Amino acid sequence: MATDTSFVLRNGAVLPLEGHKRSHDPGSVLVLDGKIAAVGGLEEVDAHPATGSVPVIDLTGHVVIPGLVNCHLHSGLLRGTAESLALWDWLNTHVDPAHRAMTPAIAEAASWMAYTEGLRGGTTSVLDMWRFMEGSARAAERIGIRATLAPYTADKFSYFETLETNRRLLETHRIAADGRVRAWVGLEHLFYCSDQMFRDAAKLAEEFDTGIHTHSSETIWEVEECLRQFRRRPIEEFHNRGILGERTVVAHGVWLDDREVKILAETRTSVTHCPCSNMKLSSGPARIGYYRDQGVCVALGSDGEKENNSLDMLEEMKFASLLQKVSTLDPTSGDPWDVLDMATLSGARALGLDDVSGSLEVGKDADIVTVDLRQLHFIPRLSGEDFNVPAHLVFSASASDVADVWVKGRQLVEAGEVISVDVADIAANAQAAAEELFERRRSLSPIS
Amino acid sequence: MATDTSFVLRNGAVLPLEGHKRSHDPGSVLVLDGKIAAVGGLEEVDAHPATGSVPVIDLTGHVVIPGLVNCHLHSGLLRGTAESLALWDWLNTHVDPAHRAMTPAIAEAASWMAYTEGLRGGTTSVLDMWRFMEGSARAAERIGIRATLAPYTADKFSYFETLETNRRLLETHRIAADGRVRAWVGLEHLFYCSDQMFRDAAKLAEEFDTGIHTHSSETIWEVEECLRQFRRRPIEEFHNRGILGERTVVAHGVWLDDREVKILAETRTSVTHCPCSNMKLSSGPARIGYYRDQGVCVALGSDGEKENNSLDMLEEMKFASLLQKVSTLDPTSGDPWDVLDMATLSGARALGLDDVSGSLEVGKDADIVTVDLRQLHFIPRLSGEDFNVPAHLVFSASASDVADVWVKGRQLVEAGEVISVDVADIAANAQAAAEELFERRRSLSPIS
Repeated sequence: MATDTSFVLRNGAVLPLEGHKRSHDPGSVLVLDGKIAAVGGLEEVDAHPATGSVPVIDLTGHVVIPGLVNCHLHSGLLRGTAESLALWDWLNTHVDPAHRAMTPAIAEAASWMAYTEGLRGGTTSVLDMWRFMEGSARAAERIGIRATLAPYTADKFSYFETLETNRRLLETHRIAADGRVRAWVGLEHLFYCSDQMFRDAAKLAEEFDTGIHTHSSETIWEVEECLRQFRRRPIEEFHNRGILGERTVVAHGVWLDDREVKILAETRTSVTHCPCSNMKLSSGPARIGYYRDQGVCVALGSDGEKENNSLDMLEEMKFASLLQKVSTLDPTSGDPWDVLDMATLSGARALGLDDVSGSLEVGKDADIVTVDLRQLHFIPRLSGEDFNVPAHLVFSASASDVADVWVKGRQLVEAGEVISVDVADIAANAQAAAEELFERRRSLSPIS
Repeated sequence: MATDTSFVLRNGAVLPLEGHKRSHDPGSVLVLDGKIAAVGGLEEVDAHPATGSVPVIDLTGHVVIPGLVNCHLHSGLLRGTAESLALWDWLNTHVDPAHRAMTPAIAEAASWMAYTEGLRGGTTSVLDMWRFMEGSARAAERIGIRATLAPYTADKFSYFETLETNRRLLETHRIAADGRVRAWVGLEHLFYCSDQMFRDAAKLAEEFDTGIHTHSSETIWEVEECLRQFRRRPIEEFHNRGILGERTVVAHGVWLDDREVKILAETRTSVTHCPCSNMKLSSGPARIGYYRDQGVCVALGSDGEKENNSLDMLEEMKFASLLQKVSTLDPTSGDPWDVLDMATLSGARALGLDDVSGSLEVGKDADIVTVDLRQLHFIPRLSGEDFNVPAHLVFSASASDVADVWVKGRQLVEAGEVISVDVADIAANAQAAAEELFERRRSLSPIS
């Protein structure tokens, strides 16, 4: 019976995050052949007939949660080098030249780094928009993380991916690694992609029965420019171009008016909130509480290493909560349970993966994270009416507090160390790739 | 020659943070008898006659910075239990009942936890407002951190410290532990302390030749209520009550008008910015860039475990920068070098300790922190024109990345572990004290 993907996680605080503010403290999770077979209090899970025949992992002093879903990420190598500029200047000065200098090998090294860094901090599923994503697929397959790959495509600039390269990725990776790695259709931005390209992208997604990921409404300037160019606000223009729907994820959505929010809710389009990025690039605070109240599925994302500059979803949750509280001046906003939902089940729903992931429920895959609460910054740890574990996760925890991570029941992180791959090797390759990228960028000729 | 407080830290990136945007990469710091004897490039420090006769600590892959100064802290045990209320409701519901239930032993356990937690994250100096602070002094003395102790005094409520207990603390601890531990005069708030108490506090500070710490202008309501009660804005009322000056530190200062900023600059009064607290309690974003431009000394503080909920000054720097960027919509605000200055030299200046601490300069005490940059979340690590270490410290580092800490040349943290005290013991005592506090609070009779 017992395989390496069958075990019981016993005596931690368990937050199933299945849409309710519920906990089992102490509780257990039984995993059989990589799937969740029981979740509940100690006695309840002990009573399951299989519990006695699988290894017991004692999680006293830990909390057990679903794996975190990073629903907007760019693999990248510009960390700490692209600072103190507003979004559109920053794109011209730092980001686009890096795209021009990119090679498949450099891009692949970046994905190895990004996915491994995220995994170490409890991220079990990413939605990555990046370049030459066959390499990203290799990284995700080998590391063991779930990855949804949406290439950076554009037709108004020559140095991005195209729908043709996106099609090739779909042909080879629409569903790979037993469903753990999937390809979507990516669209960089309204200002990078023609109207026709959007319509072709929608057709491509339909042809391959897959999702669409793009950016929108990150800055005020962008909304004004969109109104000037297209006489519609960005989400209206998306609607007009036929890309909204329940398998479309729009990153940012900072400056949406009420009508745009209604369109998102009606079309069941998801938004990924990226609070660190929106703060760091001076984009602004999104009205996340309102979006959720209106029925929009709001996921959480770190954005890339160049916008954040970390890929720490626990830290991102703190920023998400605190940005809500300060921008609304309403301290009841940004509730820890709501933010945990955005980082787990809502993220899985945005990706169309909530049937298999995003919460600790019987029948779902065992995408599970534990956080070690036995440190000074989690004291006091209280139960019953003073239960403070959700607040600890959102306000006090960071990536380094993650102890263990499983994806589909396979352990990828143990006692704070990534065990599925050689981290030192990945670090060295990423450093070398970054140095090569900066050298190549320096030798670029100016765009005429 | 070589004692345990004499050594050379060799081959890290060194940021002296002496008021300039300068680095030595690679560089070294020579410490002799607990004081900084040389700072500079490798050759420069190697050439010092004493360098050859002291132990060499190789810091390849690390950055070396001055110890961090947490200029507004409350020791406490309410972490994660006092959530989702605005400041004045939160004070009534959570904070004041804890004050009523507090005992000297519980208070002391809280300070042991707060100082040890801060130290592990690179904090070498704290300004703590707390209760029964003889216990706080014992904790700081033993842990090895610098501490400036300002009791929570009030005369409008019976369950705080008084100027009488503050005087007793001054009599025993005005300067203790060879200057490492010091007592100041504390004043909880304008609404907690009478006009006469403020004037007596100013006299007490003058009598003991010491500083004053208080809160102000944290919320809009508070400013409006102050105008209603006193017909002056809070900083004007402070000025009227005679407590402003170069040894006064005002926590928060979120809602200051231009005239109040001018008064602070003219009286050389310092402000401690607490971005996490101001966001979490929905207080608002302080105009920190403007305050600094007007010549006000702005320090950085975590506030307490109940407002934040961590005491991580590296994380606080990220919040400080990003809150500036999003609240001003100016991405050039919140520059990493400026935020590093707030967390080090400006903090030391606010405390009147910049002659001995706050930067890596010859003749100052060796209050030094190293951060290990050899992890995925600091890749790439670049030098020369792409030097990204200041950005890495502010945007990517957190407490767990701190490797070593020295105060006055004594090593207190080594390879990420606090070595001066027994952390497990401190954790267990704090947990037990918190449980006792919650029990005591539950049995309080209502205030009539």
